Amino acid sequence: MLTSVFYPEKEDWQKLVSRPHLDYGYLDALMKEIFTEVEAKGDEALCTYSQRFDGNVPAQFKVSDDEMLKSGDGLSASLKSAIDTAIGTITRFHTLKMVEDEVIETMPGVRCQRRRVPINRVGLYIPGGSAPLFSTVLMLAIPAKLAGCKEIILCSPPSADGVLPEVIRYAAKICGITQVFQIGGAQAIAAMAIGTASIPAVDKIYGPGNQFVTAAKVMASNYFCSIDMIAGPSELLVIADETAVPAFVASDLLSQAEHGSDSQVLLLTDSITMADSVKKEVIKQLMELPRAEIASKALTNSRIIILKDIETALEFSNNYSPEHLILAVENAKGWALKVMNAGSVFIGNYSPESAGDYASGTNHTLPTGGFARSSSGITTESFMKTITFQELTAEGLLSLAPTIEEMAKTEQLDGHKNAVALRVKYLNKILTKGS
Amino acid sequence: MLTSVFYPEKEDWQKLVSRPHLDYGYLDALMKEIFTEVEAKGDEALCTYSQRFDGNVPAQFKVSDDEMLKSGDGLSASLKSAIDTAIGTITRFHTLKMVEDEVIETMPGVRCQRRRVPINRVGLYIPGGSAPLFSTVLMLAIPAKLAGCKEIILCSPPSADGVLPEVIRYAAKICGITQVFQIGGAQAIAAMAIGTASIPAVDKIYGPGNQFVTAAKVMASNYFCSIDMIAGPSELLVIADETAVPAFVASDLLSQAEHGSDSQVLLLTDSITMADSVKKEVIKQLMELPRAEIASKALTNSRIIILKDIETALEFSNNYSPEHLILAVENAKGWALKVMNAGSVFIGNYSPESAGDYASGTNHTLPTGGFARSSSGITTESFMKTITFQELTAEGLLSLAPTIEEMAKTEQLDGHKNAVALRVKYLNKILTKGS
Repeated sequence: MLTSVFYPEKEDWQKLVSRPHLDYGYLDALMKEIFTEVEAKGDEALCTYSQRFDGNVPAQFKVSDDEMLKSGDGLSASLKSAIDTAIGTITRFHTLKMVEDEVIETMPGVRCQRRRVPINRVGLYIPGGSAPLFSTVLMLAIPAKLAGCKEIILCSPPSADGVLPEVIRYAAKICGITQVFQIGGAQAIAAMAIGTASIPAVDKIYGPGNQFVTAAKVMASNYFCSIDMIAGPSELLVIADETAVPAFVASDLLSQAEHGSDSQVLLLTDSITMADSVKKEVIKQLMELPRAEIASKALTNSRIIILKDIETALEFSNNYSPEHLILAVENAKGWALKVMNAGSVFIGNYSPESAGDYASGTNHTLPTGGFARSSSGITTESFMKTITFQELTAEGLLSLAPTIEEMAKTEQLDGHKNAVALRVKYLNKILTKGS
Repeated sequence: MLTSVFYPEKEDWQKLVSRPHLDYGYLDALMKEIFTEVEAKGDEALCTYSQRFDGNVPAQFKVSDDEMLKSGDGLSASLKSAIDTAIGTITRFHTLKMVEDEVIETMPGVRCQRRRVPINRVGLYIPGGSAPLFSTVLMLAIPAKLAGCKEIILCSPPSADGVLPEVIRYAAKICGITQVFQIGGAQAIAAMAIGTASIPAVDKIYGPGNQFVTAAKVMASNYFCSIDMIAGPSELLVIADETAVPAFVASDLLSQAEHGSDSQVLLLTDSITMADSVKKEVIKQLMELPRAEIASKALTNSRIIILKDIETALEFSNNYSPEHLILAVENAKGWALKVMNAGSVFIGNYSPESAGDYASGTNHTLPTGGFARSSSGITTESFMKTITFQELTAEGLLSLAPTIEEMAKTEQLDGHKNAVALRVKYLNKILTKGS
């Protein structure tokens, strides 16, 4: 558990923390079946699969207006107040500054423009499981609303009692979700990608899930439905020097480890004393955790790595590209400027990962598996797209014409050339007449 | 060829212009083989597949510095000047306004920030085929460079003579691409996703390609390498009223149709006269095109649709979400404001699609297949990602603590709660001591 590695050579870094390839190929046949059936039979297929995979079919998939209205009555005032606070911080962080549509004249008479437009119809998926992950409702619905999406639907599997946990319904309600459906799994994703009588088709699907949900999200692309990201197991990397507090670091490592037995947590430090103290603290704190079994399993995938200095630790971290990065070091803010690859960064001893998971305001839907090298967590822009526009005046076209014609000719696309040549001929005729 | 449809009912719209699902499943086994072999055998596997699929293996994959240096010597002054002009407009449109890293205090003592960071290593793919598509080199390399990517590599298959067309090498050189490799197909994508002795691994792969290339790009995700988009056949929708010039509209439809036999072009109009005139012009112009055979095939997938007014045509277009949209109507600029789903929009009679394909300045790598509902064409931001940061002061943590603890408790994540509770206890001890 939580093996220590001392001063590894740079060429061994990757091996030390390698992640397994994703491979949903073994689910392809099943996914194809589900999507084909949902396309052919609609709601009937959803009932079949809900029965088969979840063992129950709700009386209706859509949560009724009445049920939505009552949602929250059974929740404590303190929980509602916590949700309010989190909505406040998340909203403040995700509010976009109004960006004016600026026209750029790329040449005289050639006016180009970009316009940001909300995605019309979006679908949010919230996994079920032991506890209701209502925080993810906030993390997806708030930016969707801020972006201006018109239709925001949510699918989540009902509990064993056949209904959706009240806190999920309540969070959906106060975040302004249009319709809530109690259905989970690959069939929920297929429904949102294709559309059925009960569940409308959407343009993009967001949210975490198990391997079935993830495989279904990948399949959704074949139906021209976009997805937010392909999510793997959750990760945390902590960089700590001797100024860190071992108990804090241990609690952060464990908070990530309790997510799932496939989570990976890493501690990088330049201090052997710190490495030892954190290890002792982890063992001590682990025993008190209800989810100790899950966390212990995750710790077997995890490492304490001792490196010669914090500079080297930063380099290691940028190579690894963790989903979450905690900087528990002196001058943490200065080191933060050197972070090139990470989903979200927590600066200093009083910024635990759980602050970002719930309420600092940043989004907790983040790239895993090294995808942080190339992609971002969810932002309000994730719920928008940009459309480009161009308007050429007669003069603009005449001055660009030789360029376009020359390039089209070289690419052997005469039709492209012709579309310009015709217009030039026409304009020259007018201009000659005019003179 | 180019069937006309009169005043279809709204519920029939989708059927009328339906796109086939994407399905690369039949290539899965081959893709898995190629990726596994490239991972195990590196360059040796690249040679095997280049021999098998392309019938030739270049002496070395990397284009030598000497060859790069000489690239352009054999090109005409007019072509070089056209490329210069296009680089100018594309650069002007893709230059980002400097956005300051703004710190948002989401609560007193809770400071959050977003930072845009270039993707470090990117790989561009340029397909081979009958003509060298050097314009796509500009469309990908210019925003990559503007974004600040450090390593920009390019893969493109050599011509039958075993070398990469000079204009591709020249475009790569003047756009500042780091290394150019003469290799194509799925093996080139696998090489960039995994890395070999010759070809470095990248974080994200961009660019169009045939079904093998596209299937390989989908597979790259399993190796945590991102891709720009899943591209289907190219599309153009023209909305024309009686103010349009039939010869222009016909030339635009044909310029799109000549791209490939699976291209789809649509004309929406409220004028039966216009529909007839355009049809006649298409037949006339088609006969003069070198790629008439390809274009004719594309026209069989295509439609002229007569609708009652331009408002309805806009609604049809927003439902369809074309890659390219031409507005050849009165007050085209006003109608442009109603475009909600499209890749790129061409306003008025003097804005042919080929202007955007080459030189107006907008990007020509655009979402197809209806993906324009949810995604954008290539922008400079496509070569960047955002990292979020948060720094809580002791006070910030103390004021957020009840919120985080309440939410973590409800989600049954005690480790998350503990990471905060420990810090609160510690701080209270200090504060008590201090008083």
